[in-house]
Amino acid sequence: MQWVKVLGGLVGASALLGLGIILGHFAIPKGADAPAPSVSVSQDLDLEILETVMKQLDASKIRENLRELSREPHLASSPRDEALAQLLLQRWRDPESGLDAAEAPTYEVLLSFPSREQPNRVAVVGPTGTILFSCRQSEQNLTGEQGGPDVVPPYAAYAPPGTPQAVNAAKHGVAGVLVYTDPADINDGHSSASQTFPNSWRLPPSGVERGSYYEYFGDPLTPYLPANPSSFRLNPDTVSGFPPIPTQPIGFEDAKILLCNLQGTSAPAAWQGALGCDYKLGPGFRADGDFPADSQVNVSVHNRLELRNSSNVLGIIRGAVEPDRYVLYGNHRDSWVHGAVDPSSGTAVLLELSRVLGTLLKKGTWRPRRSIVFASWGAEEFGLIGSTEFTEEFFSKLRERTVAYINVDISVFANATLRAQGTPPVQSVIFSAAKQIPAPGLDGLSIYDNWIQYFNRSSTEYGLVPSLGSLGAGSDYAPFIHFLGISSMDIAYTYDRSKTSARIYPTYHTAFDTFGYVDKFVDPGFSSHQAVARTAGSVLLRLSDSLFLPLNVSDYGETLRNFLQAAQRDLGVLLEQHSISLGPLVTAVEKFEGAAAALGQHVSALQKDTPDPLQVRMLNDQLMLLERTFLNPRAFPEERYYSHVLWAPRTGSVATFPGLANACSRAMNTSLGSAAWAEVQRQLSILVVALEGAAATLRPVADL
Amino acid sequence: MQWVKVLGGLVGASALLGLGIILGHFAIPKGADAPAPSVSVSQDLDLEILETVMKQLDASKIRENLRELSREPHLASSPRDEALAQLLLQRWRDPESGLDAAEAPTYEVLLSFPSREQPNRVAVVGPTGTILFSCRQSEQNLTGEQGGPDVVPPYAAYAPPGTPQAVNAAKHGVAGVLVYTDPADINDGHSSASQTFPNSWRLPPSGVERGSYYEYFGDPLTPYLPANPSSFRLNPDTVSGFPPIPTQPIGFEDAKILLCNLQGTSAPAAWQGALGCDYKLGPGFRADGDFPADSQVNVSVHNRLELRNSSNVLGIIRGAVEPDRYVLYGNHRDSWVHGAVDPSSGTAVLLELSRVLGTLLKKGTWRPRRSIVFASWGAEEFGLIGSTEFTEEFFSKLRERTVAYINVDISVFANATLRAQGTPPVQSVIFSAAKQIPAPGLDGLSIYDNWIQYFNRSSTEYGLVPSLGSLGAGSDYAPFIHFLGISSMDIAYTYDRSKTSARIYPTYHTAFDTFGYVDKFVDPGFSSHQAVARTAGSVLLRLSDSLFLPLNVSDYGETLRNFLQAAQRDLGVLLEQHSISLGPLVTAVEKFEGAAAALGQHVSALQKDTPDPLQVRMLNDQLMLLERTFLNPRAFPEERYYSHVLWAPRTGSVATFPGLANACSRAMNTSLGSAAWAEVQRQLSILVVALEGAAATLRPVADL
Repeated sequence: MQWVKVLGGLVGASALLGLGIILGHFAIPKGADAPAPSVSVSQDLDLEILETVMKQLDASKIRENLRELSREPHLASSPRDEALAQLLLQRWRDPESGLDAAEAPTYEVLLSFPSREQPNRVAVVGPTGTILFSCRQSEQNLTGEQGGPDVVPPYAAYAPPGTPQAVNAAKHGVAGVLVYTDPADINDGHSSASQTFPNSWRLPPSGVERGSYYEYFGDPLTPYLPANPSSFRLNPDTVSGFPPIPTQPIGFEDAKILLCNLQGTSAPAAWQGALGCDYKLGPGFRADGDFPADSQVNVSVHNRLELRNSSNVLGIIRGAVEPDRYVLYGNHRDSWVHGAVDPSSGTAVLLELSRVLGTLLKKGTWRPRRSIVFASWGAEEFGLIGSTEFTEEFFSKLRERTVAYINVDISVFANATLRAQGTPPVQSVIFSAAKQIPAPGLDGLSIYDNWIQYFNRSSTEYGLVPSLGSLGAGSDYAPFIHFLGISSMDIAYTYDRSKTSARIYPTYHTAFDTFGYVDKFVDPGFSSHQAVARTAGSVLLRLSDSLFLPLNVSDYGETLRNFLQAAQRDLGVLLEQHSISLGPLVTAVEKFEGAAAALGQHVSALQKDTPDPLQVRMLNDQLMLLERTFLNPRAFPEERYYSHVLWAPRTGSVATFPGLANACSRAMNTSLGSAAWAEVQRQLSILVVALEGAAATLRPVADL
Repeated sequence: MQWVKVLGGLVGASALLGLGIILGHFAIPKGADAPAPSVSVSQDLDLEILETVMKQLDASKIRENLRELSREPHLASSPRDEALAQLLLQRWRDPESGLDAAEAPTYEVLLSFPSREQPNRVAVVGPTGTILFSCRQSEQNLTGEQGGPDVVPPYAAYAPPGTPQAVNAAKHGVAGVLVYTDPADINDGHSSASQTFPNSWRLPPSGVERGSYYEYFGDPLTPYLPANPSSFRLNPDTVSGFPPIPTQPIGFEDAKILLCNLQGTSAPAAWQGALGCDYKLGPGFRADGDFPADSQVNVSVHNRLELRNSSNVLGIIRGAVEPDRYVLYGNHRDSWVHGAVDPSSGTAVLLELSRVLGTLLKKGTWRPRRSIVFASWGAEEFGLIGSTEFTEEFFSKLRERTVAYINVDISVFANATLRAQGTPPVQSVIFSAAKQIPAPGLDGLSIYDNWIQYFNRSSTEYGLVPSLGSLGAGSDYAPFIHFLGISSMDIAYTYDRSKTSARIYPTYHTAFDTFGYVDKFVDPGFSSHQAVARTAGSVLLRLSDSLFLPLNVSDYGETLRNFLQAAQRDLGVLLEQHSISLGPLVTAVEKFEGAAAALGQHVSALQKDTPDPLQVRMLNDQLMLLERTFLNPRAFPEERYYSHVLWAPRTGSVATFPGLANACSRAMNTSLGSAAWAEVQRQLSILVVALEGAAATLRPVADL
């Protein structure tokens, strides 16, 4: 997720836009079998194997992976990106340390690139048309890595071409948008060359954050269909979700020249930053500044849409007992430039994990109970494209067979603590893993014990526990949880928030996100990378090898309770005024809790004696499929891919069920009996049916 | 399905309607555990048990069931309908012959009834307003059963109230519609009292066919949501799918008075019937007829919409080995009047089958491998309401666990031959059953051998075989196949088409569909009822008890081939002209065939040795879930509930994939590059993705 200040250089129509400056927030997606050991249908997690894997996950090998992965820029669909796909394929087909099978299927997807011939340009133009100042068109070459031909110049992907020029007091609305990252948001206020990379982890003055400005995810031309060559495609001119006007990102050193020369009244305090001047709202430049007052800002954007081939790489370890149950583990491969942190820190971990497991596999000492599928997704930076097309192509199969999806994109933002996001059923397995792994650099302390000091909540069920974040659409887990209803998680190591307020690691999506940057500033020694590899690896093994799936579905009860209480507290009166009762929702939540508790006891009972494998399979199917019961493809018709009634985007202010929250906030100011209030009732019914359906799935399977 | 001639008594605007007569076709939906035997995870179909069941299914008991079920009229939600629900509940809870558990959940649904106070009326009114002639308001009481207070007068359910009166040459469009069934369509031309019931099985002159005129199915106020008391409901005034104008059915004796007195030019030959006069098109009456030429027809409809409680009755026999796999067997309970044939002939069979299985269960001699769920649906005649609400309420659970749905609505239309409809995977199990059961009254001949003489096709795979019909929306299987994607079938005994051209049994939906009618004319001795009970019972046992599911998925290959060849033959040129290639579809069909064939070999191999139960379960999951892979909730947004890309309604004339056929027929006369042609391409892609997904589900489960 990305939070950037936006400097609109050109005047606009609305009260705010008319002032010639916009400060806003955009949410943008960031980025032939080996010998089989003797098989038993009761095969369970082998703690010795788990211990072996933990021991063999090697920090120095992760470092070497990262060096190779980030050696060159590997923008989606570029030759280097495809070369890395081949590298992964080769590793996963290695006779000593590879997997059972690996493939690199390709999709034909719509990407957006700046023009080589006509670089995008931002300039201040004098009254006579002479260029008084030009923003940098590339970042400063500070380490010799920012100058190469493969370093894509800063741009806003999918922003349309155009060359708007400001007209003072024009009443035609904003004609273009400039985006920059303020030192106040990314550098804890520091901005001088001496205080920034390569002298520190901070963003240099010339650093520019690239990104995709497409509103949805997946290939823009093939919503709900895999982007195969023969697939039906929308007309690019009619696609929705692209920015309406030319947009260009610039560095804060250039933003300073533009912003600190503006005239007009001061911007609100919340809009002020660390550029060392009072931010004015314009319109126009001040007379005593660097430019004549009647100068204008000219923006030339020459981005082009192109159909490109982008590969996913998939590798599988076939399950010994239940090969038709999949545990997926994935990360994207494409980066904006060298992408050492984003995404190569995750891919370096992925490769080390697959090496260790592959070696055990090839030696014949281990084969998981269930199948493990490793994935390296393409074109994530443009909008989770590779992973979304994959879910579209194999929807049915994945829906019926996938136990869980583990995503490790950026594995290390910083080296202070573990940070995990996921749906409630995965909480317990992440806790189990984190409790048995030492926290790097803190002898004796487990990752769990360290984690709970940074992120925690008090649970009605367990008391104080580390808090899991919920899953938005920031990485490739989005199509798995929102479109397929598969229990998903994202795992990383991250900051000590008491030490920095940086929105994200400072060189994010710039040409300064390099191997040296990671090696020197982010995780010297790679112990945090190793910690993430061990945590994700332990979670993976527990999911693939445990006889009983370690998905604690009853942990959903707490979420439902909290959502319900928020609805009662913050919406109850309003709903009563419109004679809408939360009673049926209360009953549904109680039914869920009752069914989940009873199932929990059933599991414990089964675990005592040696259960029949079929009984376990039936039980595991209930656990695996619970998440699916929360999907309703008709719940949010306007929200592409979002069908999970608990985790769809919430725009309403109340922290409750998204459909209810959003419908209420829309209905709030409409009259009694309006269509908006009918939608509130529809959303309530959709929710009740989903929760009752979830309870029915957890109840004894032969109950009527 | 119903084919009726419609006599619009009132003039209209359009070329045809303006002539004052409409002849059209409407499609209207016709409507504490027993001791367990020792359990083995390899439990397979027991042929001795099957033989015992076949022997114990008793024709005389079916006759007694029918006598009781059809003793009184039992219109949906009437006291007698609810009393029968209690009767079923009592049978299924019987300690000697009942099931493991039974319940009668209720939905609150919108039904439509005529007014007791203001009966619907059709009359001829003279110029001065005097009534010259009135149609009967009830059928003639020929057997003492047509007179009771519970005999609902003839009406068109969901037709709006109103009292339109013809105005000659009015240019305001048709104001009302009269419907009747012509003796040519239902009585092989015979119409006199002496030639009709009670003197033969034919429709008496006063007989009137009732029916629902609602366009969709399910409760009209709660699409996609179960009709629970708290569920969100649409405003009845804004519901779509109800007839726009007053409509009333009449008997052919009354239709004759109206039709044979019309003046004007003769109707086309195809519109002529057996009323003994030349059918004229009007407008108005002839001067030399029974009425003054300036007489008018007055229709008063006083139907009312009412929210009513309607019960389903559900009973379960819990599976011994795989209780979470369900074989569903159902029929509706509600009738228009006594409903001896429709639906009680099916319910009588259902009760006999559940008695025989329940007795074996309670004795402890048998328990099925999988769970068997018996269902008695409510309010089917109004639009498959009980079954649709059930699928809406338990969507997730049923989708994940249901092996197949067996529907036996009218079990005996006539006693000539078996007639089966279903999706390809059920063909083989119906054949297996039919080959081992003797055809009633034809010693030595099996039901299969008799069947193939009446309905057959030449299969590329098997040569000459009985032909299965495809499933429309004529009974409660519709929500299971179209909305849930569950392999479904409908089984009955029916006519010798060489002996009658009757559209359906003549007393269909009239007050003459009584026990005596069945006992005397339809199936004296009830041997055809017994034959259906044995066939459906054998299919049920094979599905519930076979270790390997007897669903032959490769039989889908033939359907796909036929659809593909029709597309190539009849649409190929047209598509080429618009540069749309069928190549990807050809490839997808080939992939399906290849995967299905390979899976078949895998099954045979497994069947040779004694396979691990988990392996069988994984294989059966592939077979069970194949049908689901053909669902796409976004394929037909305008067709409520229809999401099966192979069996959605086809309006296009080419007998191929419905989405493709319909899109082509719409695009046919539009210009190159129109939205309609884009839709053709979208439908092709949806189809290709579904078939590729189906193939992926059949391929080895650990293939990438």
